[in-house]
Amino acid sequence: MVKVLIVYATDWGSTKKMAEAIGRGVQSVKETECLIKTADDTSEQDTLSSDALILGSPVHMGSPDYRIKKYIDKVCSKIWMADKMVGRVGAVFASGGGFGNAGGGCEITMLAMLANLAELGMVIVPLPKNTPGYHLGGIHWGPYGRSMGEKMEQTGLPDERTEAAYHHGANVARVTHLLKDKKFLNGL
Amino acid sequence: MVKVLIVYATDWGSTKKMAEAIGRGVQSVKETECLIKTADDTSEQDTLSSDALILGSPVHMGSPDYRIKKYIDKVCSKIWMADKMVGRVGAVFASGGGFGNAGGGCEITMLAMLANLAELGMVIVPLPKNTPGYHLGGIHWGPYGRSMGEKMEQTGLPDERTEAAYHHGANVARVTHLLKDKKFLNGL
Amino acid sequence: MVKVLIVYATDWGSTKKMAEAIGRGVQSVKETECLIKTADDTSEQDTLSSDALILGSPVHMGSPDYRIKKYIDKVCSKIWMADKMVGRVGAVFASGGGFGNAGGGCEITMLAMLANLAELGMVIVPLPKNTPGYHLGGIHWGPYGRSMGEKMEQTGLPDERTEAAYHHGANVARVTHLLKDKKFLNGL
Amino acid sequence: MVKVLIVYATDWGSTKKMAEAIGRGVQSVKETECLIKTADDTSEQDTLSSDALILGSPVHMGSPDYRIKKYIDKVCSKIWMADKMVGRVGAVFASGGGFGNAGGGCEITMLAMLANLAELGMVIVPLPKNTPGYHLGGIHWGPYGRSMGEKMEQTGLPDERTEAAYHHGANVARVTHLLKDKKFLNGL
Repeated sequence: MVKVLIVYATDWGSTKKMAEAIGRGVQSVKETECLIKTADDTSEQDTLSSDALILGSPVHMGSPDYRIKKYIDKVCSKIWMADKMVGRVGAVFASGGGFGNAGGGCEITMLAMLANLAELGMVIVPLPKNTPGYHLGGIHWGPYGRSMGEKMEQTGLPDERTEAAYHHGANVARVTHLLKDKKFLNGL
Repeated sequence: MVKVLIVYATDWGSTKKMAEAIGRGVQSVKETECLIKTADDTSEQDTLSSDALILGSPVHMGSPDYRIKKYIDKVCSKIWMADKMVGRVGAVFASGGGFGNAGGGCEITMLAMLANLAELGMVIVPLPKNTPGYHLGGIHWGPYGRSMGEKMEQTGLPDERTEAAYHHGANVARVTHLLKDKKFLNGL
Repeated sequence: MVKVLIVYATDWGSTKKMAEAIGRGVQSVKETECLIKTADDTSEQDTLSSDALILGSPVHMGSPDYRIKKYIDKVCSKIWMADKMVGRVGAVFASGGGFGNAGGGCEITMLAMLANLAELGMVIVPLPKNTPGYHLGGIHWGPYGRSMGEKMEQTGLPDERTEAAYHHGANVARVTHLLKDKKFLNGL
Repeated sequence: MVKVLIVYATDWGSTKKMAEAIGRGVQSVKETECLIKTADDTSEQDTLSSDALILGSPVHMGSPDYRIKKYIDKVCSKIWMADKMVGRVGAVFASGGGFGNAGGGCEITMLAMLANLAELGMVIVPLPKNTPGYHLGGIHWGPYGRSMGEKMEQTGLPDERTEAAYHHGANVARVTHLLKDKKFLNGL
């Protein structure tokens, strides 16, 4: 059995919807458990008992929501100090208005979360171009759900924009099955 | 008189169209000359004789076109060594297919070019949200012209997606007028 | 009179020491007031009444401290919505252990803060290579104070590593004097 | 048998020395072949016949050497178009003067190369903090060899600064053995 933890923050529900789509993808893979928690509610034990960690955030001013960062600062930094997640699997996702047709800052948002995963020594799963639904919701670093139209009008997050997120979850689960309990990074 | 240099590379003409829109914006400001050159054709002298430098690239695999980078490595690095552009004005732009509705990698593309401008010690002009046309073509780091539709079909770059680029050029020209010949960064 | 606001978070005092060095640089420029506040204590009014904003953070897991991000999410995002800081001046700094001799993640940390400033439409002042003290404490995006030795031993932050920070403050103050009350970005 | 390809560019030999240290690490893992080539000399066939791709560059003006980018633009972009490297393994490294004690721009340099690997759909191996030699030569994204002292004096790249690079190569080889010929990303 493999355990995947999805940690997110949400304002109006779009990032939560992305988290749930990823969760369904995770659970589409046999012998896989998925735990979905908000950043505020995720403990060190939740994190340590997971084989994979998927972080997701709304894009706020071009970087992750402070609640995600608080989880990273308060929970993940202790784990980093003790090298306890080295060799596990990590991935990211985001959502946002995307005002400007250029991602609205989702790339640095994702990279700030990926930095945390890399610091923890986790193997990173990107979003391949041939992922179903990629054209509607993603970038090479992970799935992105756009929740606004071109004039900053709230459109919500249509289901077809979460298709890539579903497959991202399945990809992470499959990589985690292949790497679990192997000793391949610095013998740990 | 203030001189603004726009350096770009282009494959199918979208980045060139962006460069020209920026150039019109530059020239809308009185007492301003604009020189638009491809990266391959831009010399050290072209660069040194400019009060502002605007760099633009297509997004290729999530970073700038190699011709832009060759200009940076071969021309700008010598100028950096001698601190000759400190205190001038810089800005960036990009274009790309934007496959995935998340900018397609334009952010690291722009930041790699901004890194060059920051290394040169240049004051950086971003793209404010209230710029006319922002909603159709830009991100906080600069204008971005999306040249494809959601299924990777070539749409070309519609004029309305270059409106923010025009204003970006005017913004850069106005900042350059205010800063020219002032000694404000390390007395240089 | 020009007003510069420095907003920081600190754990063990290194980022505070950097903030104070920058503050001394700001105040070395005539007709300039400097306000230094922690992120937790900085209000919307503090921010709106400033002509320049300098953000500084310790590097935590490769991105800014969550308290900085909370200030950005809670205070700056409202200002962004109303376009109230467009055309003012911004800059960043950081401190950290720098474990690994490669900056320890200070670049994404600085860029996440710069993203906020760019979103606000602020003109950005980098750290030129010829800044006194650059060799001991900085990168092109801003000054960086390294507070550890090569084996993660706490060394504190020696005074000579804050020299570039001092000049960064003076640079920001001088740029702010040149741009204050001018209408140059989208006429605002 | 697993094949690992290391592609690099070098000016004065430091990045080459890093490539060779990584190559020794790769070859320390049984049943592993390693091919080390300059970016100028690496063909599409070299790339396609590899199970893992490790990219390394000197840091030039805060982003990768243009020769690395030319390889990405000319060789990798075709492979991306055809989704031919999805699910293989990728990693990066860099070297540079590191002037300023803050990495000198190695982070965006590494991220620009990682962007290429992510676009190709490759699983990414970071550099865990507990890697031997990390304290002397690395960041979470990969090993970094600093070749200058604090006053920009050329020191060359001492052997102890390449220790993390050696282990990085071994880590990549081991991950590649675990993932080779598995179908785990979108069934490819």
